[in-house]
Amino acid sequence: MLQTQINQWLTSNREHGVKLLQKLVQADSIQGNEQQAQKVVIKTLHKIGLKVDVWEPDGNELSKHPDFSSSRQEFIGSPNVVGILKGTGEGRSLILNGHIDVVPEGDLEQWEHAPYSGKIIDGKLYGRGATDMKGGNVSLLLALSALRALGIPLKGDVIFQSVIEEESGGLGTLAAILRGYKADAAIIPEPTNMKIFPKQQGSMWFQIQVKGLSAHGGTRYEGVSAIEKAFLVVEHIRELEKRRNERINDPLYSNIPIPIPINIGKIAGGDWPSSVADRVKLEGRMGISPEESMEEAKHEMESWLLTLKELDPWFNEHPVTLDWFGARWVPGAIDIEHVLVEKLTSCYQKVLGFAPIVEASPWGTDGGLLTKVGFTPTIVFGPGVTEKAHFPNEYIEIDKVFEVAEIIALTIVDWCEVG
Amino acid sequence: MLQTQINQWLTSNREHGVKLLQKLVQADSIQGNEQQAQKVVIKTLHKIGLKVDVWEPDGNELSKHPDFSSSRQEFIGSPNVVGILKGTGEGRSLILNGHIDVVPEGDLEQWEHAPYSGKIIDGKLYGRGATDMKGGNVSLLLALSALRALGIPLKGDVIFQSVIEEESGGLGTLAAILRGYKADAAIIPEPTNMKIFPKQQGSMWFQIQVKGLSAHGGTRYEGVSAIEKAFLVVEHIRELEKRRNERINDPLYSNIPIPIPINIGKIAGGDWPSSVADRVKLEGRMGISPEESMEEAKHEMESWLLTLKELDPWFNEHPVTLDWFGARWVPGAIDIEHVLVEKLTSCYQKVLGFAPIVEASPWGTDGGLLTKVGFTPTIVFGPGVTEKAHFPNEYIEIDKVFEVAEIIALTIVDWCEVG
Repeated sequence: MLQTQINQWLTSNREHGVKLLQKLVQADSIQGNEQQAQKVVIKTLHKIGLKVDVWEPDGNELSKHPDFSSSRQEFIGSPNVVGILKGTGEGRSLILNGHIDVVPEGDLEQWEHAPYSGKIIDGKLYGRGATDMKGGNVSLLLALSALRALGIPLKGDVIFQSVIEEESGGLGTLAAILRGYKADAAIIPEPTNMKIFPKQQGSMWFQIQVKGLSAHGGTRYEGVSAIEKAFLVVEHIRELEKRRNERINDPLYSNIPIPIPINIGKIAGGDWPSSVADRVKLEGRMGISPEESMEEAKHEMESWLLTLKELDPWFNEHPVTLDWFGARWVPGAIDIEHVLVEKLTSCYQKVLGFAPIVEASPWGTDGGLLTKVGFTPTIVFGPGVTEKAHFPNEYIEIDKVFEVAEIIALTIVDWCEVG
Repeated sequence: MLQTQINQWLTSNREHGVKLLQKLVQADSIQGNEQQAQKVVIKTLHKIGLKVDVWEPDGNELSKHPDFSSSRQEFIGSPNVVGILKGTGEGRSLILNGHIDVVPEGDLEQWEHAPYSGKIIDGKLYGRGATDMKGGNVSLLLALSALRALGIPLKGDVIFQSVIEEESGGLGTLAAILRGYKADAAIIPEPTNMKIFPKQQGSMWFQIQVKGLSAHGGTRYEGVSAIEKAFLVVEHIRELEKRRNERINDPLYSNIPIPIPINIGKIAGGDWPSSVADRVKLEGRMGISPEESMEEAKHEMESWLLTLKELDPWFNEHPVTLDWFGARWVPGAIDIEHVLVEKLTSCYQKVLGFAPIVEASPWGTDGGLLTKVGFTPTIVFGPGVTEKAHFPNEYIEIDKVFEVAEIIALTIVDWCEVG
C-alpha cells in the first residue's frame, strides 16, 4: 500500500530530513541574505532529480506590475528557485510554494540559544525560520523525495517554489507567476499548527506621521509632544481594529481572537532628549479580510484617522499623514468545496486518524497573489507553530514536519494521479 | 555721564552689532560644527583688543573629571575661545560666559525661513541659535567693545568665554574652569526674557528600555507590544513629575508652570511593521532642583520606575532598565543678597526705568559648573526669548540685545570698578 511505503521511506530518511532542516535554519536568510539557504534548496532539488530554474527577479520590470510590493527594487543575490517534476500528461497540476526569507531575529536577549543555532531539544528544532517556514518547505521536499525515491509516476506536473520576499510583500511569488508558473491549485505550508486555511487574510503596511511642536525640555509646557500625541493615535487605531473585527462573522474565524488585527510594529520620533519631540513616525500592518478590497480597507483607515480631531483639537490644525508603503499581501480564498480541500482533508484523516481543523488564516500569505494574479486557488496548511512565527525562541516540532510530508505526498498522488 | 556715553556708542554701532549677530547665526554651530562660528568670535575679540586663548578640549583628560558629561570624547575641530581684558589690579573679576553650540533645527517644514537665514523682520532676527544664545553672546561682545572704545580702564579682570557643548552637558565650561579660568562672579546671558535668574535648575539625561514580547502582527494577541507598554511608562513618569513639582515651594518658581519638568524627547522601538515590537527605547531629560543632589534625583527616578509593576504585572517579570547617559547640568544658585545681584538689578533699573523680574531658571545652564566646580557664583540674565529656545522659527528681538549690552557694560563698570 502506497501510504505505508511513503511512511516507511520517511521514517528511514528521518535523519536526512532533520539535517536538511537544520542546514536551512542555520543559513540565516533575512531579506537580502537568501542566497546561502537557496543554495541548500538547489542542491536538494538536483538530488531529487527535478528540473531546476534559478533566477534573480528583475525589480525594474516587476515594479511596473500593479501588485508589485516590496521595500526594495534590487534583487541581485536574492534568487528565486523553482523545481519542476513534469507529469506524464493530462493530470491536474499542483504548485507547492514556500518562502525562504525570514524576519529579523529581534532582541537577542530574548533568545535562549543563538537565533540560527538549529539546536534540537526534546523533538523541537529551534531557530529563526524553523516554523516560518523552513519546516514546511522541508515537508514539501521530503514529500517529493519520497515520491521520486519510490518511483511513483504522476500524470500532472508538480512545481516546487522556494521564493524570496514573502515577509515583505510577495515579490518572489509574483515573479514566479509572471515567469509563467501557474497550476490548477497550490498548497503553501505556512505555520498553521496543522490547520487547513482555505481563506487567507491580506494585509498592507502603513506609515503615519504625527506632528508635535518642539520646545526646550525645561519649558516643555511651551511645546506639544508628538510622542504623547502618537499614543492617542495608537489608541484610536485600537478602536478602529475593534470596529472592523466586530463586523467579521464568518465561522472560519470563530476561534481567532482578532481576525484582522492592526499591528503598530515600529515607532520612532524626536531627536534630542532635551527637546520636546516635534514628530513621530508609526509603522504598522493592517489586516485585510477576504471579503473586502485593499482599496476599501485603505479608505476606511484614512477616514478613521480624520476623526482624530474629534478626540483632540490638536489634530484639527495638525492632521496626521498616512502613507501605504512597502509590503502588502492580497487576501485570497479557495472554495471550501474545492476538490483539493476535499483531498487534503481526507489524506490528513488517513495519516493522522482524525479530522483537521479548517479555519481562516490570521495573516496574509502568498496565496493571495497565487489566487488573484496566478488564478491558482490556494490552500495554506503546514507543520509550523503559529504562535512562534516572528517570536524569539521560534521552533518547530520535528514530528509534525514528517506528518505534513506524508499528508502532502499522499495529496499529490490523489490530486495529480498516478500516471 | 558714562551711561549716556555707552548708550550713544551702542546706538551708533547698531548696524555693526546686528551684522555680527547675523554672521554668528548663519554659521550653523550644532555639536561638532562650532569652528566657523568660533572664528567669527575670535576675529571680534582681536578687534576689541583682548588677549585671546583658543584650544580644543582634551576629551581623554577631561573624561576623568567626575563632572565630565558629554555625548562625545573627541573635540578636534570644536575649539573653546576665551578673551581676557586684564584689569589694573585689586578689582573684582568677572566671567562673561556664553555657549556657541546650538541644538539641531528639527523638522524643517516647521520653519518659515531657512533655519540659518539670520533674516530680519520687524526688528526680530530669525534663526537657530539667535535666542539660544548667540544674541546674548553679542550683548557681551558689544558691552566689551563699548568699554574699550570709550577707553574706560577697569580694576578687575573681565574674562569673556565662548564655550562649546553647553547643549550636551557643559564640557566647554568645565574645560575652561580646569584651564584655570575662575573669577569672583559670572554672568551668563542665556535667553531669560530679560529676567534675572539667581537659581539654575540642573538636569540629567536618561534612557529607559521597555520590553515587550515579539509575535507576528497577524496574531498580535500572542505577543506583548513594547510600544503600548512604553505609553504606560511615559504616563507613569508624568505622575512622578507631578509629585516632584508639588514639593517645590520656593517663590522664585511661583510663575513657572512646571519648575523641574521631566521631558521624554525621543522614542524608538520595534523593527518590522508586521511584528509586535519587543523593545522600545525612551530618552529624556530630568530637571534637578537646586535643593536636591543629582544622586537624590537619580534615586527617586529609579525607585519610582520599580513601582510600575503595581500598575501592570507585566513589569514584574519584565522590569524596565534605566541608564543615565550623555549630558547633565549641575544645578546652581547664587545668594539672592549677593553684591552682583544687587548691582545687576540696579543697572537694569537705570537703563530700563523699571525693576527686573527675579526668578528661578526653568532649565540648566553652565552656571551650575561655574558655581560647583569653579567656585564662581553665577547669575543667568539675557536678551533671548525663552519660549523660542529649541523651537522652530527661533528669533531674538534686536532691541533687547542692545539693552542687555548696555546693562552689562554698566554692571561691569560697577562690579570691576574704574581703575
